[in-house]
Amino acid sequence: MTRIEAIDLFLLQVPDFDPARDPVKDTLLVRARAGQYEGWGEGEAAPFVSLAAFVTPESHSTSRPVGASVLGQPLEGPADIVAITRRVLEDSMNVLQAPHVYSGVEMALWDLLGKKCEEPVYRLLGYDRAFAKQPYVVIPFAATPEETFGRMRQARQAGYRAVKTGWNGFGSGDIAADGAQLAAAREGLGTDARLFLDAARIWGNDPTATNGYGALLDQFSVEWVEEPFEPAALEAYAEFSRYFGRQRIAAGENIHSVAQARHLFDIGGVGVIQIDCGRVGGIGAARDIARYVDRRGGQYVNHTYTSHLALSASLHAYAGLERQDLCEYPMDPSSLSWAICREHLALGADGKVELPDAPGLGIAMDLHAIQEHLLDVEIRVGENILYRTPNLA
Amino acid sequence: MTRIEAIDLFLLQVPDFDPARDPVKDTLLVRARAGQYEGWGEGEAAPFVSLAAFVTPESHSTSRPVGASVLGQPLEGPADIVAITRRVLEDSMNVLQAPHVYSGVEMALWDLLGKKCEEPVYRLLGYDRAFAKQPYVVIPFAATPEETFGRMRQARQAGYRAVKTGWNGFGSGDIAADGAQLAAAREGLGTDARLFLDAARIWGNDPTATNGYGALLDQFSVEWVEEPFEPAALEAYAEFSRYFGRQRIAAGENIHSVAQARHLFDIGGVGVIQIDCGRVGGIGAARDIARYVDRRGGQYVNHTYTSHLALSASLHAYAGLERQDLCEYPMDPSSLSWAICREHLALGADGKVELPDAPGLGIAMDLHAIQEHLLDVEIRVGENILYRTPNLA
Repeated sequence: MTRIEAIDLFLLQVPDFDPARDPVKDTLLVRARAGQYEGWGEGEAAPFVSLAAFVTPESHSTSRPVGASVLGQPLEGPADIVAITRRVLEDSMNVLQAPHVYSGVEMALWDLLGKKCEEPVYRLLGYDRAFAKQPYVVIPFAATPEETFGRMRQARQAGYRAVKTGWNGFGSGDIAADGAQLAAAREGLGTDARLFLDAARIWGNDPTATNGYGALLDQFSVEWVEEPFEPAALEAYAEFSRYFGRQRIAAGENIHSVAQARHLFDIGGVGVIQIDCGRVGGIGAARDIARYVDRRGGQYVNHTYTSHLALSASLHAYAGLERQDLCEYPMDPSSLSWAICREHLALGADGKVELPDAPGLGIAMDLHAIQEHLLDVEIRVGENILYRTPNLA
Repeated sequence: MTRIEAIDLFLLQVPDFDPARDPVKDTLLVRARAGQYEGWGEGEAAPFVSLAAFVTPESHSTSRPVGASVLGQPLEGPADIVAITRRVLEDSMNVLQAPHVYSGVEMALWDLLGKKCEEPVYRLLGYDRAFAKQPYVVIPFAATPEETFGRMRQARQAGYRAVKTGWNGFGSGDIAADGAQLAAAREGLGTDARLFLDAARIWGNDPTATNGYGALLDQFSVEWVEEPFEPAALEAYAEFSRYFGRQRIAAGENIHSVAQARHLFDIGGVGVIQIDCGRVGGIGAARDIARYVDRRGGQYVNHTYTSHLALSASLHAYAGLERQDLCEYPMDPSSLSWAICREHLALGADGKVELPDAPGLGIAMDLHAIQEHLLDVEIRVGENILYRTPNLA
């Protein structure tokens, strides 16, 4: 029987990080090993805290280290991953950080299992085939509408037909300025492109502050407004969706359980559920949410701004759901996230993103780039070395 | 102006821990210093992961270390703590572990501020006076009803008039066995004692599994059943409360935000909200929840199984709410939690617990006992020492 022999955690960081140049400073990569197989995953966010949740000493029966629920477990089929997930949720219930590190671990387990079974992960998840998704890219408002126009035109020329924009001042009071930015974005993209807006929690938990914005969304054919409120403001979401319709609101990137997604959808009336596979607890949780939303006529989309390993994991989770035809697509080749993958999910001739027809997640990692970003970490508690950066080889 | 100069984190552990002998294995103590003042707090749970959340390198704008929002901030009055809390919630939003460590930090800030202002914390929180609370102690089902009877009789003779019992097999199928245990508990305690039941999530998220238990609660005058379902199963709680009434359900010990408490109360119909001050984000969050519940006719009670420092913090949070007259009371002097406090909140002649009339939280710490349990920890990331156990002196 194949058992999980090793879970290696690697903390990566960009040397001399400059946030103006680079969207991602650091990350936590996970490598799982069993027999002759290995798999890779990536957790989001606060990688050092996630590492701590994996190796922490046991505290009490619901505060066990995530590692204790994973190492040594059998890994023969999908049911084994489901069993491990259940154990993590129960035994690490009071380790708040657990879902973030387990997201990366669980991705690595699916990747490994896919390689062992010689199947792409989406098939192990119960899908017959993978449907291509239309990518949207993220281009925030620039400093001026003119600049915003220029960036949008550039994106359109590069072949993108869907863009999410916003923040950088959006919603901070001047609705005319917001209108000018949206007008520039729409003009730069063309009338046939899809446009989404990220409000970045600008209205806290006050739905009345959104007065007038419905008309603005209509005027520039903005399909949805993302995170108008704080993630936990279910009451504000519910009120907003009563007036704007549920398909007009997107949220969920901060979610870290299936239950939270259900509450956003059922109670908050959020029609577009955005899930980060590196936060929610992994591919299985994302798949369960996608199916829940899809069956109820909602829209599901990934939230991914990290690597194409995480992107691939995110897409496998809802690959087989034909109606769910969009995906968030990280396109910045300047970053750490780009460097650590040897392969990337490129756009096809039709402008869509397809999963590779390969076992597991289908993304080969770049060990050289990983080594270049690898931090040397050591944690000592009493006389025990709790963690030391493992060898990559 | 007084500014927060140091936050020292101490990881404590029982040497040669035996869970059969001791309920608490480890804990995270926090000492805050500003000018000539110091304050103490205690966070729950998974202390090492919480420590990591305080010292972690900054990852991105919503994944900042908790320490960065606290150190160097002004601390002149209650509004300063509110401002720090807001900053932690925003800047560490994607550090899932943040509420657990901040709970301990925030307690220490209130303790310090109380000493500086020469006021008990409850006055800084806006209460005129502190009402004594009736303590209940936790005595789980023993192996047999006879043993359960004996333990309950002992507790009654020791002066306790309220007990929470349960788990250790409760609800696992044999309703007659559950009835025999409850009968023994009621007989041992006497008819005038208050009795509560902890179901320890035995029914997962399935309200139909609770069939027949309503009659059992009535028969033995059990006031509430605690955590019949998983903490996030709002839908199951809502269904249960429709049949049993909201005052029959208690939950909330795992909560780590004000919003989660509101959802349990408003959506789940949970009438008895149980808050652990060491998990929820500190005294301010607990106070806000207590007021919310109190104004709407619900019941608020603390969840405390750790030290009397944490107990005192928990009581300050709802000290001024006269109708909220119960408190959970940790009584085990064998544990680490007992040892680290020099003073304890003893029962008065009327059997009730009163807060000391002293500045801050009013609990002096036992530095000698702390030193005896102190773990020597060192965390190195690259060339930086991120954490090293500070000196107690």
